[in-house]
Amino acid sequence: MSTDDTLTILPLGGLGEVGKNMLILEYDRQIVVIDAGLMFPENDMLGVDLVIPDFGYLLDKKDQVKAILLTHGHEDHIGALPYLIREINAPIYSTLLTRGLAEIKLKQHHLLDQVDFHTVQAGDRLTIGPFAIEFFAVNHSIPDCVGLAIDTPVGLVVHSGDFKFDYTPVDGQPTDFAGLALLGERNVLVLLSDSTNAEHPGFTPSERQIEMAFDNVFRRAEGRVIVGTFASLISRIQQVIHCAMRYNRKVAIAGRTMVDNVSMAQKLGYIDVPPHTMLPLNEIGRLPPNEIVILATGTQGEPAAALAKMATQRHRQINIQPGDTVIISSHTIPGNEELVHRNINRLFQRGAEVVYHPIAPVHVSGHASQEEHKLLLNLIRPRFLVPIHGELRHLKALARLAVELGFAPERVLVVENGYRLHFTQDGARVGERVPGGYVFVDGSGVGDVGPMLMRERESLARDGFVVVVVPPLIDGRPSGRPQIVSRGFVYQPNAQGLFEQITEQVLQFLAQTPFDSPTQLENALRRYLETYLYQETKRHPMIIPVVG
Amino acid sequence: MSTDDTLTILPLGGLGEVGKNMLILEYDRQIVVIDAGLMFPENDMLGVDLVIPDFGYLLDKKDQVKAILLTHGHEDHIGALPYLIREINAPIYSTLLTRGLAEIKLKQHHLLDQVDFHTVQAGDRLTIGPFAIEFFAVNHSIPDCVGLAIDTPVGLVVHSGDFKFDYTPVDGQPTDFAGLALLGERNVLVLLSDSTNAEHPGFTPSERQIEMAFDNVFRRAEGRVIVGTFASLISRIQQVIHCAMRYNRKVAIAGRTMVDNVSMAQKLGYIDVPPHTMLPLNEIGRLPPNEIVILATGTQGEPAAALAKMATQRHRQINIQPGDTVIISSHTIPGNEELVHRNINRLFQRGAEVVYHPIAPVHVSGHASQEEHKLLLNLIRPRFLVPIHGELRHLKALARLAVELGFAPERVLVVENGYRLHFTQDGARVGERVPGGYVFVDGSGVGDVGPMLMRERESLARDGFVVVVVPPLIDGRPSGRPQIVSRGFVYQPNAQGLFEQITEQVLQFLAQTPFDSPTQLENALRRYLETYLYQETKRHPMIIPVVG
Repeated sequence: MSTDDTLTILPLGGLGEVGKNMLILEYDRQIVVIDAGLMFPENDMLGVDLVIPDFGYLLDKKDQVKAILLTHGHEDHIGALPYLIREINAPIYSTLLTRGLAEIKLKQHHLLDQVDFHTVQAGDRLTIGPFAIEFFAVNHSIPDCVGLAIDTPVGLVVHSGDFKFDYTPVDGQPTDFAGLALLGERNVLVLLSDSTNAEHPGFTPSERQIEMAFDNVFRRAEGRVIVGTFASLISRIQQVIHCAMRYNRKVAIAGRTMVDNVSMAQKLGYIDVPPHTMLPLNEIGRLPPNEIVILATGTQGEPAAALAKMATQRHRQINIQPGDTVIISSHTIPGNEELVHRNINRLFQRGAEVVYHPIAPVHVSGHASQEEHKLLLNLIRPRFLVPIHGELRHLKALARLAVELGFAPERVLVVENGYRLHFTQDGARVGERVPGGYVFVDGSGVGDVGPMLMRERESLARDGFVVVVVPPLIDGRPSGRPQIVSRGFVYQPNAQGLFEQITEQVLQFLAQTPFDSPTQLENALRRYLETYLYQETKRHPMIIPVVG
Repeated sequence: MSTDDTLTILPLGGLGEVGKNMLILEYDRQIVVIDAGLMFPENDMLGVDLVIPDFGYLLDKKDQVKAILLTHGHEDHIGALPYLIREINAPIYSTLLTRGLAEIKLKQHHLLDQVDFHTVQAGDRLTIGPFAIEFFAVNHSIPDCVGLAIDTPVGLVVHSGDFKFDYTPVDGQPTDFAGLALLGERNVLVLLSDSTNAEHPGFTPSERQIEMAFDNVFRRAEGRVIVGTFASLISRIQQVIHCAMRYNRKVAIAGRTMVDNVSMAQKLGYIDVPPHTMLPLNEIGRLPPNEIVILATGTQGEPAAALAKMATQRHRQINIQPGDTVIISSHTIPGNEELVHRNINRLFQRGAEVVYHPIAPVHVSGHASQEEHKLLLNLIRPRFLVPIHGELRHLKALARLAVELGFAPERVLVVENGYRLHFTQDGARVGERVPGGYVFVDGSGVGDVGPMLMRERESLARDGFVVVVVPPLIDGRPSGRPQIVSRGFVYQPNAQGLFEQITEQVLQFLAQTPFDSPTQLENALRRYLETYLYQETKRHPMIIPVVG
């Protein structure tokens, strides 16, 4: 589809967020891939461990993929890298911290020695085929994030990465407004811009604000302070360490990923940890509670993570006790609200004081709000705007904003994942949708869980199943008594009466007519029992007769 | 436990919200029940239709229950009435609109002719046993809400109902501040106060604000306007009708409950509908799009409700089309975020303009924020405060607020559902927890879905099942080839290879040793296959061998 003088931009990927997990740039049969992230499954994606983009479009073009560029080190931008690399082992380019985080993943998948990884830094330039790529620093909730300015034969493409404008960032690297303005001077063809927070009016507060909120809590805490956050929020972890030092507390870490990330970030110089600040988790008993800070994973209420274990007495080293102060310093990933609230309630139940948004400003977003978008659009002044990184409603919010700023509606291209955008010297058009979408990872299976299997799981989750084992037919009649096996329908040990009735019904049914074939019997028996069980229970279990 | 000179207050109920669905007042073996509501199941309550309070505590004391008092007509306060009435048919007291809504429910359960229903209005007084009950008007998001002032031999109990302070309420009944202040003069023993919104600073905006937001949307809409809201938000429906009149549009209703509620509210005089305002849904084709407003249920994205059907082309009369403007005028019930967002995205996909919070202020809460709580506490000046109607985190937020206002911590009693609060002339104490909690309704089963069955459904939802039917044993060996039945594990039609391997494994296993009994064989085979299947797939299906 991409002819020699056409630049194609294709957002791919995980669930509804457009181009967040993966975005493809294609010109003259040469491709660069931007990011390779994963999503966590939604509540109705039963049994699914992870969701990754469908790489199908790339599999026919493996040789054309010249580079994988990573904008920053969060899961939703690097988490699918091991799965991508297994299919397409192109050279990877990222900044140092992003590389450190990606390598932890590649190592877990035993792929570290197979990849061709290149470290870049903001300001670096790189030519890959027809693409002249420049990395520029942006602020987000993790250090070492970059946006991309990619010069192509059709024009300049600017990709914002995940960004906000932070005048007082924790990593000390404020936005290079002059650099953005200079990009704006270069006649930008298209800006691909992070729309995640485009529904929110105003400015997103600085990461620095959190340190004041933490300070307030630390100053008043009489016992241990336990801070829950994401393992990849390196700047947040740094702020906790700062606070701990100010209040003469030592820091222990609960959660393996966070331990790995902190040690890596420290080694690479992204976290400043003065000597004697850290304490192994199994040594916290040596100090009085008011000299301890514990950093923990599990702010989403995940039952297997440290915070939920502490709240339910399942953690080996730490149980929440009266006097503890727990800070929940992260946003709630949509869909996790119930687990998050349940966990907060449990922490209160155990006697802790719990501090969370909106009780105190202990979390800020890493994404630009409306006023920041207005500023970026004014700096970059692109010919076209393509909102990315959000659900359709977020893209629409950014589009609405651009139109209010005077963009003609045809200059704002809102597309969902899988739609190709074609750019030529003459303009832009939306092309066909490529097949595929996202792929479920379940256990060792990548892509084998599809809609049919999901429907089976939904049905089983709702009403369970009843298997009726009918002994082999002799002259069209079963040779013995049927056996009933059921789970998830009614609790069998408490419902012997019902199961006796079911057996009775099956016997009566089988006694009525002889059957030509097991299949004929199975179908008729299924229909019969469906009606009978709905009448008795108003439930619809999956009914599976088997003639033995 | 309740001796003659002790007043016991016992919050019961659905999930984590304390005393929201039901609250019991008990003195000298005489009981009044306040509200009988239901909750919708959380995401991990698989297959459950509804959650209702456990009435177990009352079942031994049926004769002692003298009255059921309803504060207002929302589901979470009246929805369990049919289930309660089946067990305990005490006289019911409520205002007229609440009664209308409750009677619709009782009728659906064929219980309407069995109940003893009494209509009261704000200002009415009523003596029931030792309780002198006075109903006072409060503002919420439905008209005809009341709070309760209940004089008992131990002192005056004030129950806020669900409330906010609305100086410009849509139903024209502002809060009677003087009345509240007069209650405050009467030496209130305990205030039971709605803490739902106690985490939120400031004042909750007036319901009236919504009309301005609606007006903005109506003024600019070029096609149909579709307003999604809850069927019980009678005031909201009134505001839509006002707007429709101002912009010369006719109103049609999609959703049976909303049709029933509107017709009842109109009959009772709670909605003002001028002649020729309404239009049957099947006649909307007669008018141009810009003369139509459609009121619809389904703001939570429920697949079976009108809005989701319209968004996915499954509605018989209305499909969303470009030019439509959809207003989502309700809050998102926690846990429904994914469905709500998915539905908004789908409405955008179909070409509609979608207006929702925070894009525009088209919904306001019906519950008091922090400044309103401060005002109420200053008006009522109770000796004790018991935060109710929230999760533990909400109760704690209200408690924190009261302490900031100067309440001694021992005057604020935070308890979860099931804990009895005992009040005497001397003071208050927290008593023992009564057994029970909440009860699941699934199909026609009330209470038969317990933790064991839920675990079966969870397991089936995650990884499905494998039933292995082994033909009868002859001399400890099976008499034929095993059959494998599986659902939800891997999609069987696509995985014939795996199922042949499983059959092979079973045959090999059975060939190894003879078994003394079917049970012994079943247990050993289950363990064997568990290991084998985890190794092959990293999944843990439920494995159930059956010897035929």
